[in-house]
This record gives sequence, C-alpha cells and structure tokens, in this order.
Amino acid sequence: MTFSIQTNPMSIEPVLIAGEWRPADSTGTFQADNPTTKEALPATYPVSSWADCEASLAAADAAFVEMRSMSGEQIAEFLEAMANGVEARADDLVDMAHAETALPKSPRLADVELPRTTGQLRQAAAAARSGNWKHPVVDTANDIRSCYGPLGPVCVFGPNNFPFAFGSASGGDFAAAIAAGNPVIAKANSSHPGTTKIFGECALDAAKETGMPEAIVQLIYRTGHEVGEQLVTDDRVGATGYTGSRGAGLALKRAADGVGNPIYLELSSVNPVVFLPGVLEEKGGELATEFSGSCLMGTGQFCTNPGMVLVLKSEAADAFIDSIVQQFSEATSGTLLSSAVKNSLHQSHETLKAAGAEVLCGTGEGNGAGYCAANTILKVSGAAFVRDPETMQTEAFGNSSLIVEAADLGEAVEVLDQLEGNLTGCIYSAADGSDDAAYDQLAPVLRDKVGRLLNDKMPTGVAVSPAMNHGGPFPATGHPGFTAVGIPGAMLRFGMLQCYDAVRQHRLPEILRDDYEGPTQRLIDGSWQ
Amino acid sequence: MTFSIQTNPMSIEPVLIAGEWRPADSTGTFQADNPTTKEALPATYPVSSWADCEASLAAADAAFVEMRSMSGEQIAEFLEAMANGVEARADDLVDMAHAETALPKSPRLADVELPRTTGQLRQAAAAARSGNWKHPVVDTANDIRSCYGPLGPVCVFGPNNFPFAFGSASGGDFAAAIAAGNPVIAKANSSHPGTTKIFGECALDAAKETGMPEAIVQLIYRTGHEVGEQLVTDDRVGATGYTGSRGAGLALKRAADGVGNPIYLELSSVNPVVFLPGVLEEKGGELATEFSGSCLMGTGQFCTNPGMVLVLKSEAADAFIDSIVQQFSEATSGTLLSSAVKNSLHQSHETLKAAGAEVLCGTGEGNGAGYCAANTILKVSGAAFVRDPETMQTEAFGNSSLIVEAADLGEAVEVLDQLEGNLTGCIYSAADGSDDAAYDQLAPVLRDKVGRLLNDKMPTGVAVSPAMNHGGPFPATGHPGFTAVGIPGAMLRFGMLQCYDAVRQHRLPEILRDDYEGPTQRLIDGSWQ
Repeated sequence: MTFSIQTNPMSIEPVLIAGEWRPADSTGTFQADNPTTKEALPATYPVSSWADCEASLAAADAAFVEMRSMSGEQIAEFLEAMANGVEARADDLVDMAHAETALPKSPRLADVELPRTTGQLRQAAAAARSGNWKHPVVDTANDIRSCYGPLGPVCVFGPNNFPFAFGSASGGDFAAAIAAGNPVIAKANSSHPGTTKIFGECALDAAKETGMPEAIVQLIYRTGHEVGEQLVTDDRVGATGYTGSRGAGLALKRAADGVGNPIYLELSSVNPVVFLPGVLEEKGGELATEFSGSCLMGTGQFCTNPGMVLVLKSEAADAFIDSIVQQFSEATSGTLLSSAVKNSLHQSHETLKAAGAEVLCGTGEGNGAGYCAANTILKVSGAAFVRDPETMQTEAFGNSSLIVEAADLGEAVEVLDQLEGNLTGCIYSAADGSDDAAYDQLAPVLRDKVGRLLNDKMPTGVAVSPAMNHGGPFPATGHPGFTAVGIPGAMLRFGMLQCYDAVRQHRLPEILRDDYEGPTQRLIDGSWQ
Repeated sequence: MTFSIQTNPMSIEPVLIAGEWRPADSTGTFQADNPTTKEALPATYPVSSWADCEASLAAADAAFVEMRSMSGEQIAEFLEAMANGVEARADDLVDMAHAETALPKSPRLADVELPRTTGQLRQAAAAARSGNWKHPVVDTANDIRSCYGPLGPVCVFGPNNFPFAFGSASGGDFAAAIAAGNPVIAKANSSHPGTTKIFGECALDAAKETGMPEAIVQLIYRTGHEVGEQLVTDDRVGATGYTGSRGAGLALKRAADGVGNPIYLELSSVNPVVFLPGVLEEKGGELATEFSGSCLMGTGQFCTNPGMVLVLKSEAADAFIDSIVQQFSEATSGTLLSSAVKNSLHQSHETLKAAGAEVLCGTGEGNGAGYCAANTILKVSGAAFVRDPETMQTEAFGNSSLIVEAADLGEAVEVLDQLEGNLTGCIYSAADGSDDAAYDQLAPVLRDKVGRLLNDKMPTGVAVSPAMNHGGPFPATGHPGFTAVGIPGAMLRFGMLQCYDAVRQHRLPEILRDDYEGPTQRLIDGSWQ
C-alpha cells in the first residue's frame, strides 16, 4: 500500500454518504497495490476524517427511522436487486478484485466467491421475507409477546481475504445487518478499495431501484485509528461487525465495550487438526496430500486454515510429516494478499522460531510471483508447546502450519487444554475404531475450545448453512454464542430482543398479533406454529 | 453494614467450596444490619481473599468436567430437589431474609418471592429435561449440526433487592446457569449473607441427594474489588451474571471484556412511563393511585420501578401531579434495604436538585421505621431535561420518581430521544383513540430504548414467561439481545454455540443424531420437528 498526505482533490475517489458519491473530507490518501506486480494501482482513495463519519452516522440514523416501518418484503427486494446487480457487474468485480488481491479469477473469484456472495444476499432476503429470524414468542395467558428487531446502524469492517463474501459492502455481515433491518456504514478493507467501491455502486443502484432510503449503505475507505474507535462508540451505532487482525480488532473492542455498544469480532484462529495414530497407519500418505492441499489453497489465507497439526510421536507420524514437508517444498508458493500479509507472516515465523520451533521447510522468500513466502512447516514438541502455549499459538496467517508432536496421549490432552478459543477443531481417527479411546479423551477438551468440531475433514470449507457456526470462544471471536456465517443465525448479532407487554393488538408488529396469518413460524404458548 | 479487620476465626461463618463448608481465607469480616432496627445482626461473615476464589474456580472447573457428560434429566433432578429443599426451609428463609432486608414476611417474601423462586427452579428443570433451550439445528444435506451447550463455571453476583428470586445461590441467573449445564460460583450480596447461606445449604443437600458433583455450587460472601475483578477474568470462567449497582458492574464489565469473558449485567433503569393527555382527562385520578401504589410498593426498590414520568403540560396533568404528591405525602415511608440504599437515594436526590429539579414532596427523612427516606416526587421541565439528559437520568433507587413535564408533543419526543437504554418503557393512552396520533409519534422512539414496551400497565411486575424480556440496551444491561428473566431465553446467556461438521453419528450429542426420538423440538432442514 502506498500512502500520501499530499492530495490532489481532482483525482481522489469519492465516498458514499446519504446516497451521494461525494468528495471525502480527507486527512490523507492511499493507493492499493497489485500484489502480483507489487506496483501501486492507479486509483487514489481518501483517508476519511471524523467529518465523514459524522455525516455517515447522521445519514444512517435517518435511514434507520425510515427502515423501522418497512416490511421484510421491501428489505428482501433490496437484497435481491443487489444480488442481481452484483451478477451484472461480475466481470468488473472479478477483474478489480484480482488486481487488488491476486486471488485467481477462476475458479476462486468468479466461480466460487461471487456465487457464494450473491447466494448469501438471496438467503438473507429470504430470511427477511419469512421473518423466521425474529423468533416470535407469544404468551397468550399473560399477553406478553417478544421478537428480535433491528438495533440501529451497523458498522462493518471487512477483512482482506474475502473481497466479495466478507466484503464490508457485500458480504455476510453486510447481508445479515441489512436483512435484520439496519442500515450499514461500510469501512472498506484498504487492500481492495476498488472492489468495495463497485459493491457500493451496486448497493446504491439497488436502493434506487427498490425505493429504499438511499442512505441504507455508506462507504468510506479508511480512517485513522482514533477516528475508527470514535465511530464504533457513537451512540447512534447499533452494533459493529469486524473481521481482521487481532490488534486492530481488540482496540475497537475496547472502545465499543467501554460504552456498551455490541461489537462482533472475528480475530484469529489456528484451527487445530489432530491426526490420531490409527488413521495415520491407515492412510497417512493420503492425509498428507489432503492436508497440504487444504493448507496451501488460497495461499493459506483463510480464517479456518489448518495452522496447527497435533500428532502423537510414532513412525507413521514421522512418515506423514516427511510427506507434508516434501509436498510443501515442491509446491510453488502462491501470491499473498499484500505486503502487510507477507510481513506479518514473516514476523510470526520469527516469533515461533525464537520460542523454539524447528523449521522443517520454508520461512524464507517464496518461489512464486509478487508478494510471496516459502511454503512453511514448523515443528515443536508437545512439551515445548505446553511450556509457552501463548507464543506457540501465534497465528501465522498464510501458507504455513505448525506441527505439534506430543510424546503420548496425556501430553496431547495437555496441549489441547492450553488452546485459546478457535473457530474450528478437527480430529481424524481410524475407520476401524482403533483410535476411539483416544478420541474420547481428546474430543471433550477440544469441544470447549472451538465453535465447530469436525471429524475426518479439513476445516477450510465454511458452508452457508443454518446449522453452521463460524464462531467460537475468544479470541476467535468476541462472544461464543453467535455465528458470522449462516442465515438466520448470523442476523441475531444485529437484532435486539423487543418485548411487548399488554400492548394493544393494532399497535403490535404484525407477526405478534393474534390474527397473524403470514409465513413466520411462531412459538405460541410453548409450541411452534 | 459493619466492617472489621479484626477477626475471630471461631465465630466467622464458613464458605462453601468443593462441597465442604470450610473456614474462609479471609482478609476481613463484616456483619449485615437489620434495616428496621439499624443494628448489626449477630453472624460474622468473611471477606474472601483470592485463595478462596482460586479454590472455588478449581472446584467448579472439575465439576464442569463431570457435568459435561450428564444428561438434562440429571440436572433437572438437582434443580427440583433444590426447589423442594427450599420449600422445606421456607420459614428459616423468610425469617432470615426479613431480618436482613426488612422486606415484609407476608405476602412479599413467603407468598410471592419464595414461590416465584421455586417456580423458576422448576421451570429451569423442565427446560434442562426437554433440551429445547439448546435450539438444535440439523442440515442433513451438508451433515452439519449445531446446538447450544454449556460454557463453563458461571460467577453470579446477586442484587440486594430480591434475596430469593435473584439471589446468587437461588435466583434466575443461578437456575439458568445450572440448567444450561454449568456449575456456579455464587457471590452473596453483602446485605443478606445469611439468607444466601441457607440457599447454599439447600444446594449442597440437593447435590448430595441427586448424585451431582458437590462442587456444583460454591458460595463466598464478599471480596475486595480487585479480587472480584480477577475472578471474572479467570480463564476457567465461562461467563458472569451481575445484578447490582452501576459503578461496581461497570468495573467488572471492564475487567471481563478485557479478556473476552462474557458478562451479563443488569445495572440501572429509570423505566419511563408516559401519560398522554387524553387518558389523564379520562381517568387521571385513578392513574395517580395506580402509579403511587406501584412506585411505593416494596419502597420502590425494584429494577423496574417507574422512576420517571413524562406528561404534557395541561390542566389534567396538573391535577394528576397534585394527586400523586398528595398520596406520596400521606403514605408512610417504607424501610429501605440498607443504609447504603438510603445514602445512595439521598445522593441521587442531591444530584437531581443541583441540576434544577424542583422538589414537590420528600427528599428528607422518612416517617417509617429504620432506614427510611420520605416518599419523594421531583419535577423538571422537558426543556431542562433535554439540556442535561445524563444527569436527569440519575437513578434514584427507592421510593422516588421524577416527573418530566413537556411543553408539547415535540418536546416529549426530544425527551424520549435522549433516553439511555432502559429495561422498560410504558405509554398510557386514552381508550377513545384521542391519544393515538401522539402514541404513534412517541412509541417508535421509546421502542428503540427499552427491552419491554408496555401499554396502560405499570412495569413493576416481571412475569416469568418465555415471552418476557427483562433486558434492554446499555446501560440497562450489557447486551440488548438477552433476557435475564424467562426460561429458556435466560439460559442462552450461559450457553455457547457448538457446531458438529461431519462428526460420526455415535459421537454426536444425542439430540443431534439422525435416530433421535426424544422430546426436544429440532429445526431439521428448515422446519421444526
């Protein structure tokens, strides 16, 4: 990324506030880099001052007043129009995102992430239309009724690694916040501002097309840290969704927590994968290939990348590790999302090495194009891990994994017991049942530490399913009760519980009335109807 | 309350840790007062050091490991045995709580709060048995399944005003935490330690009777502030439930938030009640009596006490206010829970008066027994309220209310727009529809600020209903998405979302298996079954 404080107002990209693309009130500018060429891309984007945030908040607050009286049907139409608009601009989006992130156009961007993104928007539309996410509960004897309702403007800070599906003006948090009835203030990830801008255009077009308040979506590109913290603490903000680095996320959390504003975070996760001895005997070679493919896919830049492997010392484990190292060494290293990702990966390797991790392969420069690092496998003993568990759980975001070799099952339990909260945890075990006793000892310990527990499957795929939990205990996220993926679950983060006690029938939300006949499933006097 | 740092180990009440009543590791002692006589009660209780917390955490952590594999049926049996035990000791509990709090034995303690408490325990038992609170969701096509599960030992800090129903070893948080499968570390409210001790005895008896881990409940009486903060930040703690003063609650929140430990708070609420002009014309005299009765009941010491009244200036409003003032002046002032409550009420009155509130009656010494203050009505204009809304929302916990007189409807909207988060908000309007236009302007503004919106009904009753929301935006609570009253909703605070992805059938929790045939309602591929 290239920064400048000298600005030429004629060439700076505008921000989107109150339905208008207008010049930012900027304190500086930046350009995104093309990670493949390492050269700055042509467009210049503003670093917004507080004035842009203030204007965004005022616009979103006014839009919220209008949206409060809108039906789920109207919101659904907006989300569907947006999905259609995104498809119409698929080529632009794929070209821009490829230039800004180096992620492959096909299949990744065009054939996987873009359909996932429009699918999420349409699932969110369906949830807004059905109203099931509101979880209406009626107690007729006491005349008390409750359901979830919108809570106000939502700030969305998107991550670098999914420019579409987690994008601040297009992704899961965006779709969930809007479907729950809240306007959005999107803060683009600075590594793909151009991609986010196209989504902002799609959102504004969809708002105009469907008669929504044009301030349903604001878009700014970057702020200073203090301005960002001021934004999430404003009393007009209903909640914040943040996906990104742990340091910046914790600073925002501290600020929002201090004033009682809900903030949902997805911060870091090493996603431990346990390979038990029996399954390594059974098919260690096959699993080495499965693991290597999963860990190097997308240059390892997934929040659910398997960044930690736990094995028990054995000949089968040695062979498994040798095979992984060979595959990592032979594979071409992919291009990383940015110089920042490369620097952070290097720093994590240095931290792990300084704490005693042995380098089995990699940690140096990569052999691929642009910003890249060598495919890396580090290794520590279970005893070493347990001596300094915090350092050993340093996330190395990218094409890298740490193998922890436990001396025996007891040490493996100790290792899992020292884990911080993670998004996922996985155990591979033998088909013949020979690992079952070990599984039964390890699984309960791992269960408490992760949002999603897997068997015999890599964690990298995150299905958009109502049963999904893309969440987990701190520091994987900020609250263990919520998921960031999966409709309608993800919407609950952006709702408040609203109870009506003896409120006259005609003043109730339609789904809480006695004569309601719509599609929403309701829990009435203890049974679903 | 009487404090001492000189201790005589022979006479200090023991704490309950790991199923054993044992001497505290204490840094001091205290005695509770009898609020009616203002004299110290005979028993001496310890102020626990960190060593007691550490022992409590270790015991609860071990109990949690055992509880993880227990069925809902086993937990239900414990809660029901506890309810039976509480009923068997009803006379002891009522006598002790009356001595410690001055709350009337009948009907309040014996006939209202005690049955409510055992009712909550039995509702929680039914929820543990049915498993419906776990909200199981199954996606058969993707073989992904999720449900809520327990999250670990829960610290409960109970308030002064409901020694049974919100008690740390007996009340709503306690019942919800245990029903969700978590052991509890109870911190008694220092104003009724003897009452809490009897509940601790009931809990230990119930644990022994039903074969639960005896460390299912720990009980300590008091700690220093730093020790309390260290307790809620410990990594063995799953979550904390706190009901009490705003200052102490915010300190605990800051500590818990800093390490990502969930904390649920019920802090303060003025519970605005709006009387529109038409309804005051219709039946202002009747409403004055209804309001006065509600506000003075229990000497106003309810979290949902109507501490703020909003009227529009009119002759009917003047008559209504005169009638309230007359009733407040004539009624005997009740005994407050403690000298601390009396001092805090006095301080709040001074703050409000200094900010310009006019005293219509009260603010001095009361005419009742023990710790009491005169029944108090203060008044400010809407304009004055809007000039300094933060100060004007100072909670005056007790037999006191602030009347805000708006010049017109526009000013009334401004007043509501300045409200902080509250547990409840209420609007009284005329039966003939003459207030409907005003209602439609005010209700949407009030809706966003409160957890429970009422019509034509005082907020003081909080039914234990699945449709109840005893919660609301900050600072009423720490998160607008959760309720502290109502089963199963209240249990979700003490659960984490646990997802299973491709986990082998026999390793799944029973309620997520394909062949499950129990009573729990499950959302399978989009429909409740």
